[in-house]
Amino acid sequence: MANAPYKLILLRHGESEWNAKNLFTGWVDVDLNEKGEKEAERGGQLLAEAGLLPDVLHTSLLRRAIRTAQIALDRADRHWIPVRRSWRLNERHYGALQGKDKKQTLEEFGEEQFMLWRRSYDVPPPELSDGAEFSQSDDPRYAALPPEIRPRTECLKDVVHRMLPYWYEGIVPDLLDGNTVLVAAHGNSLRALVKHLDGISDKDIAGLNIPTGIPLLYELDADFRPVVEGGRYLDPEAAAASIEAVKNQGKK
Amino acid sequence: MANAPYKLILLRHGESEWNAKNLFTGWVDVDLNEKGEKEAERGGQLLAEAGLLPDVLHTSLLRRAIRTAQIALDRADRHWIPVRRSWRLNERHYGALQGKDKKQTLEEFGEEQFMLWRRSYDVPPPELSDGAEFSQSDDPRYAALPPEIRPRTECLKDVVHRMLPYWYEGIVPDLLDGNTVLVAAHGNSLRALVKHLDGISDKDIAGLNIPTGIPLLYELDADFRPVVEGGRYLDPEAAAASIEAVKNQGKK
Repeated sequence: MANAPYKLILLRHGESEWNAKNLFTGWVDVDLNEKGEKEAERGGQLLAEAGLLPDVLHTSLLRRAIRTAQIALDRADRHWIPVRRSWRLNERHYGALQGKDKKQTLEEFGEEQFMLWRRSYDVPPPELSDGAEFSQSDDPRYAALPPEIRPRTECLKDVVHRMLPYWYEGIVPDLLDGNTVLVAAHGNSLRALVKHLDGISDKDIAGLNIPTGIPLLYELDADFRPVVEGGRYLDPEAAAASIEAVKNQGKK
Repeated sequence: MANAPYKLILLRHGESEWNAKNLFTGWVDVDLNEKGEKEAERGGQLLAEAGLLPDVLHTSLLRRAIRTAQIALDRADRHWIPVRRSWRLNERHYGALQGKDKKQTLEEFGEEQFMLWRRSYDVPPPELSDGAEFSQSDDPRYAALPPEIRPRTECLKDVVHRMLPYWYEGIVPDLLDGNTVLVAAHGNSLRALVKHLDGISDKDIAGLNIPTGIPLLYELDADFRPVVEGGRYLDPEAAAASIEAVKNQGKK
């Protein structure tokens, strides 16, 4: 389309070892489990079937997103494209909740506080102290980050603020060069990006969920605005079913 | 060491599906087999045990080198480092021999011609026509290469000439920045690099073999000359055994 020159594909990583165990993960670098690997492969198959072939990949610094992209791209025969990575695409840092059981946390703090941490736009969980278990303060991949910029906890608003510079300076230039760009990342870093692209309000973003492993295509116009609001999932039925399932979870 | 400021690690990919079938591979993009995956994992284990942690990865555009690096780096917990790729690190293009059985080729052309193609420095096999089976003329990953620069066959001398610009312009800048650099590539692109680093003559390079899956460390001085000629394998005994086995193969 002449008025939709840019193609951006978002891919949320498949199920991880800690998703299955119901633990808060955040920046803890857990691997995909077998179901997650299958989801990644299916994602690559959907890309190949749609003839939607990424020219460049952007990932977070976390294994579950990196491996999702590797598996999907290998499946789509695009394993050889350039790769760029940034901590700015990482999952939301979950602060002192990282490594904690979700059910136990709910019981300990009550539903109101629990939902505030999970879904409010601007209330982060308590900070995770440097050196604590599940802290990344000694992780070499963040060693070059000035201490004051390295998160110790984040709300979604914080994620939007640290993600956006990478959108403008890391991803947009690749789109401007005419590349189909794949971003393999996380529930909250992708919600932050979608919030920006679709102009979703601070309030409404709470209701938005992005299914795992299903590529989400945004065709963007010359002003980097989506031609279709919310983009288009490559498997719309599976995406709708997954979104519905998450909604019903919340109603329990 | 103050007089060896640069650390370069070379890693030849593990066994591929076509190594096991005894076919000439070249630029044909075959995958690792199970043995090759295990070799890659062992390579990563050797890196981790030596505390030799790459800061940046360079690979060819071929799946067997890309996956070797992915598996090894995942094992060494360095999956998150920056990745750069170039066709200039690809295996030697084997021309019209690509896809052919090695034993059949030996019988068809005789040992003298066969060994000339395999081991001479400057005699390439016949060209592989564009559009032929096992040609990469329609491969999107080489679409941006001007047709006159895309190889249709190569001798080792050709590989040296197309690899060296990437050494100087792609890899050396990363070393100058103080990074430990991992190059995951192929028998002949790595022989080309080692020939340059150690100043091996056109004649003597014929006798040099690089074992698969065993990281080879070059510590380089300020002039990018090896502190130890030939570098140092992280598992010297396994490397020596592998080199000996290849020599004995030649004697059959």
